[in-house]
Amino acid sequence: MSFAQRMIETSPAPPSIDRDVLVECIRACFDCAQACTACADSCLAEPNIAELVRCIRLNLDCADLCAATGRIVSRQTALEAQVVRSALQACATACRVCGDECDMHARRGMQHCAVCAEACRRCQRACDALLTQVAA
Amino acid sequence: MSFAQRMIETSPAPPSIDRDVLVECIRACFDCAQACTACADSCLAEPNIAELVRCIRLNLDCADLCAATGRIVSRQTALEAQVVRSALQACATACRVCGDECDMHARRGMQHCAVCAEACRRCQRACDALLTQVAA
Amino acid sequence: MSFAQRMIETSPAPPSIDRDVLVECIRACFDCAQACTACADSCLAEPNIAELVRCIRLNLDCADLCAATGRIVSRQTALEAQVVRSALQACATACRVCGDECDMHARRGMQHCAVCAEACRRCQRACDALLTQVAA
Amino acid sequence: MSFAQRMIETSPAPPSIDRDVLVECIRACFDCAQACTACADSCLAEPNIAELVRCIRLNLDCADLCAATGRIVSRQTALEAQVVRSALQACATACRVCGDECDMHARRGMQHCAVCAEACRRCQRACDALLTQVAA
Repeated sequence: MSFAQRMIETSPAPPSIDRDVLVECIRACFDCAQACTACADSCLAEPNIAELVRCIRLNLDCADLCAATGRIVSRQTALEAQVVRSALQACATACRVCGDECDMHARRGMQHCAVCAEACRRCQRACDALLTQVAA
Repeated sequence: MSFAQRMIETSPAPPSIDRDVLVECIRACFDCAQACTACADSCLAEPNIAELVRCIRLNLDCADLCAATGRIVSRQTALEAQVVRSALQACATACRVCGDECDMHARRGMQHCAVCAEACRRCQRACDALLTQVAA
Repeated sequence: MSFAQRMIETSPAPPSIDRDVLVECIRACFDCAQACTACADSCLAEPNIAELVRCIRLNLDCADLCAATGRIVSRQTALEAQVVRSALQACATACRVCGDECDMHARRGMQHCAVCAEACRRCQRACDALLTQVAA
Repeated sequence: MSFAQRMIETSPAPPSIDRDVLVECIRACFDCAQACTACADSCLAEPNIAELVRCIRLNLDCADLCAATGRIVSRQTALEAQVVRSALQACATACRVCGDECDMHARRGMQHCAVCAEACRRCQRACDALLTQVAA
């Protein structure tokens, strides 16, 4: 069982939403923040770095939004739906745009971009799934 | 001149948007991230902490979104309007909700909440102003 | 295979250090940042919140240092040992102090503190292990 | 009066340390986090980006440690000297190494690196000054 799942199981502020959807979103946000941070770093080490500037920039933005959103969805106490929803929407948008960019570089052989694109797609789906659970 | 302004003035990727609006948004995001972090801490030290739980939670969420958004609007290279806009919208939402909560406690005499509410209002306005400059 | 491991495997700046030790440290930092964020939130929802103020404060500090250190050890390009070492030392210190506090509350029945203490212990060990690999 | 100063003045957990030294450290950490984030972005837009890879990497590490340390020194409640000291030491180290790198590029005409080096020097001094106030 992941730490995220165990922290949800032991929370005194039990979420009113589906726990599996919540845990998956928490994990996807933290994993994507890590993958985007590492992808920006890998792009920096590539010989064709000049072609990867947009990828690095989107990686950095996506890492920041995933990190913030991962923290926000880790909190169950006094949950404010408007704030959680706007964070999830921003995170899903960043994951979509960054995932598209990484996919393009992955098709040209950048393996780290392929892994990062996968992390972005999973996180986008997880945010979208959680959005259906947090009432507007 | 603030560091934020000097960093914009020396950027090789000059923003196409109004620099004063941009600099004010950068500064407001970083100031609000700091104020919300400090307000959560001050609430923790209050004797009536149990009444301040929602305030602490909103402070923490707002600090996280302001920190992420402050970083994102500090970047001018390969700017992607969709990502910047969704971050600004999430930040403005968090500032509005957190500012409302802090205002309520400020009216009951919490001075740190009064200062934090001011930082939230300024940041909300600054995000809204920058949103009018970043094309949809 | 975790995303952290796959990102290391595909990095064009291969680490000179033991990959298993590195991957474990990256994962432990991100897991501990999440657990500490969730533990602070769970403490906020406890009826005896006034007794948990020190725990919340240490959770927040530990989450911030784990998040920063997790990003830093995710980067392999142009690695500067002094910076990585000082981050690992700060993170290990925060994990030790926060783990001690959480352990104390765990012995009094706080289950979320028990899970968080485990995340802190693992992260402290992982930072200490990586410190032996990054030359002073 | 800055928001940081006003938040300290209204804190119910008054610091036992010199307030001017504390406020300067809080402000220097947040300003340096912003400057390093913007400097990494400016480096990304330079035609000689390949020569700036080490600068970008150090900017990113320094931004992360300044952001974490800025939050930690913003908290006055249940302050734990060991944690605060290790964060300040890590932040000062990152600022010194990043400041040295930026200085080198500033001498070659990179104006954003000159501004960032100044922010790093100020933050290093501010962390060192606060370290003399927080008992070991």
